[in-house]
Formats: sequence, C-alpha cells, structure tokens
Amino acid sequence: MDLKSYLKERQQRVDAALDRYLPAEDTLPQQLHKAIRYSVFAGGKRIRPILMIAACEAVGGDVAQVIPAACAMEMIHTYSLIHDDLPAMDDDDFRRGRPTCHKVFGDAIAILAGDALQTEAFLLLSGMAAGQGEAAEIGRQVIHTIARCAGSMGMVGGQVVDMESEGREIDLPTLEYIHTRKTGALILASVQSGALLGGADREAFEALSRYAEAAGLAFQVADDILDIVGDQALLGKDVGSDVARGKATYPALLGLEQARQRARELRDLALAALSGFGEQADPLREIARYIVDRSF
Amino acid sequence: MDLKSYLKERQQRVDAALDRYLPAEDTLPQQLHKAIRYSVFAGGKRIRPILMIAACEAVGGDVAQVIPAACAMEMIHTYSLIHDDLPAMDDDDFRRGRPTCHKVFGDAIAILAGDALQTEAFLLLSGMAAGQGEAAEIGRQVIHTIARCAGSMGMVGGQVVDMESEGREIDLPTLEYIHTRKTGALILASVQSGALLGGADREAFEALSRYAEAAGLAFQVADDILDIVGDQALLGKDVGSDVARGKATYPALLGLEQARQRARELRDLALAALSGFGEQADPLREIARYIVDRSF
Repeated sequence: MDLKSYLKERQQRVDAALDRYLPAEDTLPQQLHKAIRYSVFAGGKRIRPILMIAACEAVGGDVAQVIPAACAMEMIHTYSLIHDDLPAMDDDDFRRGRPTCHKVFGDAIAILAGDALQTEAFLLLSGMAAGQGEAAEIGRQVIHTIARCAGSMGMVGGQVVDMESEGREIDLPTLEYIHTRKTGALILASVQSGALLGGADREAFEALSRYAEAAGLAFQVADDILDIVGDQALLGKDVGSDVARGKATYPALLGLEQARQRARELRDLALAALSGFGEQADPLREIARYIVDRSF
Repeated sequence: MDLKSYLKERQQRVDAALDRYLPAEDTLPQQLHKAIRYSVFAGGKRIRPILMIAACEAVGGDVAQVIPAACAMEMIHTYSLIHDDLPAMDDDDFRRGRPTCHKVFGDAIAILAGDALQTEAFLLLSGMAAGQGEAAEIGRQVIHTIARCAGSMGMVGGQVVDMESEGREIDLPTLEYIHTRKTGALILASVQSGALLGGADREAFEALSRYAEAAGLAFQVADDILDIVGDQALLGKDVGSDVARGKATYPALLGLEQARQRARELRDLALAALSGFGEQADPLREIARYIVDRSF
C-alpha cells in the first residue's frame, strides 16, 4: 500500500467533515467561530482521526461510521493545543508556522474557543447513534472512552505533570507518565474508539489497545528526537524549543542513540500487537513505521 | 411546602454525590484535583442541579435518576466560573467571598482545572444509562441537550458577546441575547434534562422549557438588580462591580423600577407555564418566586 495517498485521502475526508460540522465563520459570535476555524484548519496532519479510521478498517468496519467521532477527536486535540499555547501555559507564538490562536484573537477568545471546541466535540459525539439498540450503547462507550482519556487522569493530567516538571530533573518513569497521558491518551482513545465503532471483538480490541500504547509512546519519543535534529521549516516550530524550556525529553534522559533504540523497540511492539490481523491492518502498520522513521 | 428545607436537602444530596464522583485530592496530579475540589466546593447554591431535580420531580420522576446529570451540570457551571474569573477574562480575585481558583493555584492550573471539569462532566454523563434500550437513548439526548446549551451558540457564545460589549452601549435585544445564553442556556438545559430523565411527554417538556426560559432570564434580571442594591457580605463579591466594569445591566438600560417590573413579569410567565402541573411542581414555583423576591 501507498501510505502517502492513504493518509492524504483520509485527511481530506476528515477535513471536509470538519468543515461541515463546525459552525460557519459568520455564525454569531463571529470572533469565536473565526478563532475556532482558524485553529482547526491550521494544517494539522489529522493523525488521531486517521488512527481512528485505520483501527475501524482493521476490524472490517466502515469509514463512514467513524467520521463524526474522528472529527470530535480532532476538536479535542485542537482545544488542547489552543490552551497549551496560551501565555499562562507554554506561551508559544507560533504553531505549524502560523501565529497561535491567542496571538491573532487575544487570550480571552482563545480560552473560550478552546472551551467551545471541547463542548462541540461532545455535541458531535452525542449526535451519533440516535435511536436505540446496540449502536446507542457503542456510542456511549465511545464518549466514555474519549472523556476518560482526555480528562484529569488522562491528557489534562499529563499536561499538569509536564508543566510541574519544567526546569526540574525528572526520571524516566515520570517522563513516561507524562507522555502516556499528554499525547498517548488521545492516541489510545482514537484507536479504541475506531475499534469499538468498527465492531471489534474483545480480543481485537485488546490487541489494538496494545498497538496504540506502543505507537503513542513511539510518537512522543520520535517527537523529542525531532525537536533536537529536526528541520525547523518542516516542523513549523523552533528546533530545540523543548531543551530551551528545560523540558525533559527522551534524548536528554537516554542520549540520542538510546532514544532512537527505544523508538525502534516501541515500533516493533506496535507491529507485534497486530500479528493476528490481515492486510486490513496495513495502514496501522505503515503509520507505526512512519512515526519512527521520520526521526531518523 | 418549605422551600428552605427543600433546597437544603437537595443541595446536600448534590454535594454528597459530587464528593463521590470527583477524584480525591490526593489523586495524581494532586494540584489539579485540589484546584477542582477547591472550586466545586466553594459554597455554590447548586441552583442548576436543584432545578434539574425539581423538573424531574415535577413530571413524577425519581431523584436518584437525575443525580449524575445534576452533578455534571454543576461541573460545567463551575468550569465556566473558573475560566470567567481568569485575568484574561473578567479578572476577578474573589468569588463567594473566597480567593478565586487562579489566585490560589495559578493561571495555568486554573485553565486546566476548568478544562478537566468540563471533560469530567461528560465522563459522568456517559457513565449513565449503560446498556441498551430507552434509557441509553434518553442519556444520549441529555448529553446532546447539555452540550448544545454549553457550547459556542449557548453559554460560551453568551460569554463572548458579554465580553465584546463591555464599555459599549448596547440595546435591550443584545442584553437579552447575552443573558439567554450566558446564564439562561444552562438553566434551560438543567430543566430540560430533568424533564427528559423524569420521563416527560412532549407537552410537559415544552411547558417546562417555557418555565426555564422565563425563570432563567428572571434570575439574570434579579442578579443585575442585586449588583446595585445587594448586600456585599451576602453576595460575596463587590456590589457595583458590573457598573464599575462598564457592563450593561437591566437597571442601567431600563431603570431600577422598570427592571423590577420586568423581573415580576418573567416570574409570572414562569408560573403560567406550570399551570397544567399539580403540586409536584411546587418546588419549581417556589424557586421562581424566590429568584425574583430576593431582589426586592
């Protein structure tokens, strides 16, 4: 399979659906809806939605079933980026090469745009599976999975510990605590939601969860490596910004070569979790390889 | 009926349930969970949860069914207060006589505590009605109702227009746009959720919605009046703070006497909406009277 065209096709489908689901820019209050669209359509690669789609396809599900939840996931991811970039948090002026939401619309609108995006995600999720029967119960499980992974013991919890750790020496278990939550939790929720919506049985659900845990951590290790060796133009943010900020990273704790070794091990763990799947899981396999290879 | 003991009993029940549902203070990350509990247990009157309970009781429903959704509603209300108080927004140092969340825990934790509280609300809502059948569909409708009223065209939208209007002259339709969203939307969602969970038929649902719209606006008119004539010790915030901030209020637009007249009219509209209900709706009637009477 050709990963590039797979990713592009899925990304376009997600982008088109996001455009349909989000209120238009001229909807009152206009500044709020402009800020929301500015941040959602800022050139994101839609990694989480694509993982959800790929997990759904891996168990033989239909892409259409998963599109609303995939878009909701991207809204939650985007809300977290808007809030992370605020002056009171990471204080970032640029993301993906463009001024951040609060630089364009002001802090107050950025806070509220993030808030509204999170609400919009759950509004979209609750619009799925109207009516009764099994679909309603699966819809409920998807909302539960996403809320658990996004909340105080998931993504937000990881962000808190990450902030608290800035400028301090932390050990590897703390670093993995941060990353399994800050970025790993939404990746896990994406894959699990795709599995649920695709009709996975328990065994497939658990295998896909193992895949997501390993791939999610690999993603973060690779991101840390890219922060050191990456191409600024490609990343759209300052190379070395984590180091400058005193953030713990895998290369800082393990050294660059050991970090690369760790990324490769995690990739292999992710691939091993998919050993029981046929070629329907090839996109998931290619994504795990891509995540790690881009850091070499 | 004795409204005071009714309110107190319901409030205690909501408080006890919130205590059960929220992660303990020593759950990691501790600062986050301390901040969440600090703000949730800051002496709120639980108006929205009590309205949800009273609406459920008005249609003959059981209080226990509505407790999780009532707590979720209070979490959403509390998240909005934490974010409203931030320096980038209203910049309030005190609420209900205590330092605001960001004054105690810092801006970053306050932003994240608000974010996590919103997520926690949807986590709690999605934990209701597990299994299949009618309960799952009602649960879905409740999540949908709450998300619609809390989002960019509801509460958050009202907050944006309120902020944009500060220091400007606005007309009565704009003021009502703000209030039907900023405070009215969650009150409407509370009553509608209680009605849904209590098993209301369409006619009862619509009557209760009319009640909520009138009572919600009455609540805001009364609040504006109290900002001028209220007792600072009782309110726990500065009297005259809206005026000092250049916020449009009903008394400023209509004059004090006309504003009181408007509050009375809205109370009567709320009571008229309940004309088809028996004494099970007495708590709702008493609450409408109480909302308006406290401003005289």
